[in-house]
Amino acid sequence: MTKRYAIILAAGQGTRMKSKLYKVLHPVLGKPMVQHVLEHVKAVGLEEIVTVVGYGSDKVKEQLGETSEYVLQEEQLGTGHAVMQAEELLQDKKGTTIVVCGDTPLISEETFHKLVEFHEKEGSKATILTAKAEKPYGYGRVIRNANHEVERIVEQKDASPEELLVDEINTGTYCFDNEVLFEALRSVTNENAQGEYYLTDVIEILKKKSEKVMAFLCPDFDETLGVNDRLALAQAEKLMKRRINEMHMRNGVTIIDPDNTYIETDVVIESDVVIYPGTMISGPSIIRENAIIGPNSEIVNCEVGKDTVIKQSVATDSKIGERVKIGPFAHIRPDAVIADEVKIGNFVEIKKSELGVGSKVSHLSYIGDAQVGSNVNIGCGTITVNYDGKNKHLTTIEDDAFIGCNSNLIAPVTIGKGSYVAAGSTITKDVPADALSVARARQANKEGYATRIKNRLKDKN
Amino acid sequence: MTKRYAIILAAGQGTRMKSKLYKVLHPVLGKPMVQHVLEHVKAVGLEEIVTVVGYGSDKVKEQLGETSEYVLQEEQLGTGHAVMQAEELLQDKKGTTIVVCGDTPLISEETFHKLVEFHEKEGSKATILTAKAEKPYGYGRVIRNANHEVERIVEQKDASPEELLVDEINTGTYCFDNEVLFEALRSVTNENAQGEYYLTDVIEILKKKSEKVMAFLCPDFDETLGVNDRLALAQAEKLMKRRINEMHMRNGVTIIDPDNTYIETDVVIESDVVIYPGTMISGPSIIRENAIIGPNSEIVNCEVGKDTVIKQSVATDSKIGERVKIGPFAHIRPDAVIADEVKIGNFVEIKKSELGVGSKVSHLSYIGDAQVGSNVNIGCGTITVNYDGKNKHLTTIEDDAFIGCNSNLIAPVTIGKGSYVAAGSTITKDVPADALSVARARQANKEGYATRIKNRLKDKN
Amino acid sequence: MTKRYAIILAAGQGTRMKSKLYKVLHPVLGKPMVQHVLEHVKAVGLEEIVTVVGYGSDKVKEQLGETSEYVLQEEQLGTGHAVMQAEELLQDKKGTTIVVCGDTPLISEETFHKLVEFHEKEGSKATILTAKAEKPYGYGRVIRNANHEVERIVEQKDASPEELLVDEINTGTYCFDNEVLFEALRSVTNENAQGEYYLTDVIEILKKKSEKVMAFLCPDFDETLGVNDRLALAQAEKLMKRRINEMHMRNGVTIIDPDNTYIETDVVIESDVVIYPGTMISGPSIIRENAIIGPNSEIVNCEVGKDTVIKQSVATDSKIGERVKIGPFAHIRPDAVIADEVKIGNFVEIKKSELGVGSKVSHLSYIGDAQVGSNVNIGCGTITVNYDGKNKHLTTIEDDAFIGCNSNLIAPVTIGKGSYVAAGSTITKDVPADALSVARARQANKEGYATRIKNRLKDKN
Repeated sequence: MTKRYAIILAAGQGTRMKSKLYKVLHPVLGKPMVQHVLEHVKAVGLEEIVTVVGYGSDKVKEQLGETSEYVLQEEQLGTGHAVMQAEELLQDKKGTTIVVCGDTPLISEETFHKLVEFHEKEGSKATILTAKAEKPYGYGRVIRNANHEVERIVEQKDASPEELLVDEINTGTYCFDNEVLFEALRSVTNENAQGEYYLTDVIEILKKKSEKVMAFLCPDFDETLGVNDRLALAQAEKLMKRRINEMHMRNGVTIIDPDNTYIETDVVIESDVVIYPGTMISGPSIIRENAIIGPNSEIVNCEVGKDTVIKQSVATDSKIGERVKIGPFAHIRPDAVIADEVKIGNFVEIKKSELGVGSKVSHLSYIGDAQVGSNVNIGCGTITVNYDGKNKHLTTIEDDAFIGCNSNLIAPVTIGKGSYVAAGSTITKDVPADALSVARARQANKEGYATRIKNRLKDKN
Repeated sequence: MTKRYAIILAAGQGTRMKSKLYKVLHPVLGKPMVQHVLEHVKAVGLEEIVTVVGYGSDKVKEQLGETSEYVLQEEQLGTGHAVMQAEELLQDKKGTTIVVCGDTPLISEETFHKLVEFHEKEGSKATILTAKAEKPYGYGRVIRNANHEVERIVEQKDASPEELLVDEINTGTYCFDNEVLFEALRSVTNENAQGEYYLTDVIEILKKKSEKVMAFLCPDFDETLGVNDRLALAQAEKLMKRRINEMHMRNGVTIIDPDNTYIETDVVIESDVVIYPGTMISGPSIIRENAIIGPNSEIVNCEVGKDTVIKQSVATDSKIGERVKIGPFAHIRPDAVIADEVKIGNFVEIKKSELGVGSKVSHLSYIGDAQVGSNVNIGCGTITVNYDGKNKHLTTIEDDAFIGCNSNLIAPVTIGKGSYVAAGSTITKDVPADALSVARARQANKEGYATRIKNRLKDKN
Repeated sequence: MTKRYAIILAAGQGTRMKSKLYKVLHPVLGKPMVQHVLEHVKAVGLEEIVTVVGYGSDKVKEQLGETSEYVLQEEQLGTGHAVMQAEELLQDKKGTTIVVCGDTPLISEETFHKLVEFHEKEGSKATILTAKAEKPYGYGRVIRNANHEVERIVEQKDASPEELLVDEINTGTYCFDNEVLFEALRSVTNENAQGEYYLTDVIEILKKKSEKVMAFLCPDFDETLGVNDRLALAQAEKLMKRRINEMHMRNGVTIIDPDNTYIETDVVIESDVVIYPGTMISGPSIIRENAIIGPNSEIVNCEVGKDTVIKQSVATDSKIGERVKIGPFAHIRPDAVIADEVKIGNFVEIKKSELGVGSKVSHLSYIGDAQVGSNVNIGCGTITVNYDGKNKHLTTIEDDAFIGCNSNLIAPVTIGKGSYVAAGSTITKDVPADALSVARARQANKEGYATRIKNRLKDKN
């Protein structure tokens, strides 16, 4: 089988982004554009990936890591010049080289596959990925000859009236015979108005040598969108969002409003899940069958069990069991492990805690650094006092315990199995199993005093 | 007047939904598709409705109840076969029978009305509901003769080049002369590639007998959408949402972003209500004049009074008065009755409680199973301790009482009229009217101890 | 330079709005339509603005204030009659008068500029702002002669078949030579089917006198939208939202979903800010570089510092420093001043308080009327008890203090520098610097009592 390589052009400054962040690192659905490009192109099976970096190269390397090799394009002297930087790493190798820009995150795995297979089957020396543009103005037009081979690429300003009518445009993505590419690049000059080395000149050089140059038409123009400013970035976000959401819907997920649901690319969702509007799901989250998520919820890197309901809540880096009810207005912070049939109600925060089967934290509570057994009832307003100003301490609440409302559990502390903490207590010492623990003051009613207070307040004014 | 009947075809398995839920039970704007169909078709005035059910029939029966009769189609042998199941119930009756699929929730009452009136006025034996499709590919085309009567229905694969240019398509909804329908059905065979009995064959049979067959063009193609997968389900949701929202806007409701506002079909909204984005209103809710709802609020089956404002909150099954202020981040749970001019602030949960005129629960409180009088001030952090681990108990707070912050009211308990509970108290006994009640520990300041604590914490590390 | 005037027609009743609110006062992106019109037209540099008011005139005057003069159109006798009301104020003045409807909020400053400059450069006596309509049906068509001058305006009902094909329509906005306008108006009669005085008749009168009448084509039809019902109001909202969001994106702001982000016109946003969906930003807010806002947040009239993150929260009329973390589910109420590096976590309300550098209020707290120093840790569930039923009092918490969880600080009170309040305390007296303050009851464990309680609860049933 032919060996395959890819060169990702990621050195452009992206001034129209008006950003301190390097252009190709701007995220689309939470993932940097160049990462999308790398993941998609990689799917064709590659021997080597060479990313051409420039400004801000360290952060691109950090992002892509060892999946790619890197070459530095110190000055931005054109796309041909950019590809030339990969010469040392690739020039003598036999096979097919895909050249793709790091700002085209929407070109799909499938398109890369079809492009490279077409290229190799045709025995072409170069194959241009093209698309039909509704408004081709400004794009380089791809002119084909009678055999449907590429005759030339003509830029807007150089095009004849007939050529301007051509709506097949050059997307800037190519396949080349690797050796032919680098040989031709050596002949590319910067003798043009901009003084740049253009990769498109390679096509002209090959045609002069009567080499076979083909074009592969990407059926969906939207895939080839290049992101040069934040409007295009929002457009890319919208298109990728739609693609992901349609994939989930085809798999049997109900998305009430796919225009208003934001699911990142690495999320797995099982069938008969229902997602209400205003919901974001990100990270490598897994949502199991029949779960109901949203409205207005944010799930980051969580596993959510079957039949679980999460409404108007935020959950991060946690594992949530089956038939759990969360929200509205709950916050599950990292490292929560929530067993089946737990209920977490409104204004409850859970952090780095385990909750056992069937336990309930129904309202206005903070459970942090706690080990909670099963069938525990944690009353409204309960706080695990886990922080003494210096260190975090553990709270243990054993099975079947009942924590009265507005209790403070000052960690480290253990509330024994089946014990009962009276409402309004501040618990500083362990509570034995089956014990009742009370720590509160006695009530005194002072008759008539309320009137006195009110009069006093009036006098003050 | 001609008697009218309807047959709803609801036996299809809907494999492309990839769901455990029976296809026609998938909700659109919160209501199962087949329920929409039944409600819309019913509006023409029907003697009988027969729903043809198959897989999962019990749940369809449960959904539609006694409004419909049911016949079981044990095997799915085609639309003609499905209609034949109704033979026993309907065959000898005189009148008009509408046949409609249970997965076309968008066909409006008005369209059913016009269809059946057209059918009866024309004295047609069969009338096909048609629509103009922008992309007719794949649909059966309705071919008319010079008199605008239907000549035949031709499927995509059988159509001539001229017929393929016809953009009037068969939507799958029909009116028939009832007796003619069942007589014709007896002649329908399954001698075709799929081995199915097609309802469209009835048209051919009638034409052979030179019966009059007409087509009624639905002006809006979108109405005729059939839902076969979750993409179409989301599309139906979007179209119905738009229809409902436009109706409310025409009635004088301001919807800031109708694309991002989800109002179910049974909601009533009076004029000059303003609805901010990210809001869902469902159930038979009523929103009175000048109320402001949202952003990001969910109102389920509530009555909301004039001039009331609900922001970033959730309210369910409750009655909310006039000039009430709720939110942001409040949760009104079922069976709350909230009088005029009440204020319910952030992080407050109200459950099964009555609040009297002008009372305030401004922050971080849980009021459950409580009877709160008028002009009561409930301080921040107040909790009605309504649950002892076994039973729920009532809290009564009489008019003009002042509940200090972070109080626990351990039910059953009564806080008397005009009384005053000191902040931080746990109240276990009734407080008489006008009394001051205190239940808290005395403060001790230990000078220099904070430094000692800090040193000790340091040592531990 | 030619002097310029504007007449804003704001007397229409707007019955199709079905509203008690005067039509031109309906807001678009939070600002009344007529205010948008006034601000946009004002940008051309005006000597005088005359607003023609009718029903509900007081509220229009209140809205626009002294920027405009007002004339009352007592009866609604047509657009010509409306303009005539300004006669006394404007008739003898030399210069250019723009006439614009108060319900066209989308005509941009740039369009007004170009219109009036074109008018003055051409030496035209009247210039009609026109637009190309995709569906011109119902609009008055502007018919030009061979010199591209306006020949006449022809209404739908009077148009010849050729004229009906013209897609250049009259938008209802004009520039006039002021003296010529009022002279011509005197000749306008109400001898027509409706019995109204039409401003368009002025064009006919001028043409009869062989005066030069021009048309200036607004390149964007959407700009000329007139709002007559709530559907058009929602449409105007959408178009203006898109315009504002595109402006911010061009300036280097990432808006993840511009369709679902609501930024009012007076908001300033610096580059590299990221705004997540479901977010509304209003008032004269300023969002500094690199801040992250949303999802589902509402920011009203706040300054938000660099690198600050606000998630799922509401903030109003406050100043928020740099590198602050807010949310999810926090509520910053008016007059909060939050210094750099503060953390405000879930279910926290801040009202009229200052928080010093690096202080933390991480959960379930209410801080109102408080002066909080730097590096203070406020434990979960802390409440500033600022209200005694009559007056609000101040809480002072000095630098480095540590407030234990579930504390009540009963104002007026001062918690000294570096002091330590034990969890669960109700603090009624000042705490000296470095002191430990405790106010809570001693814990008593009653062994076996929990079982007894449970048995007792069982017996009750």
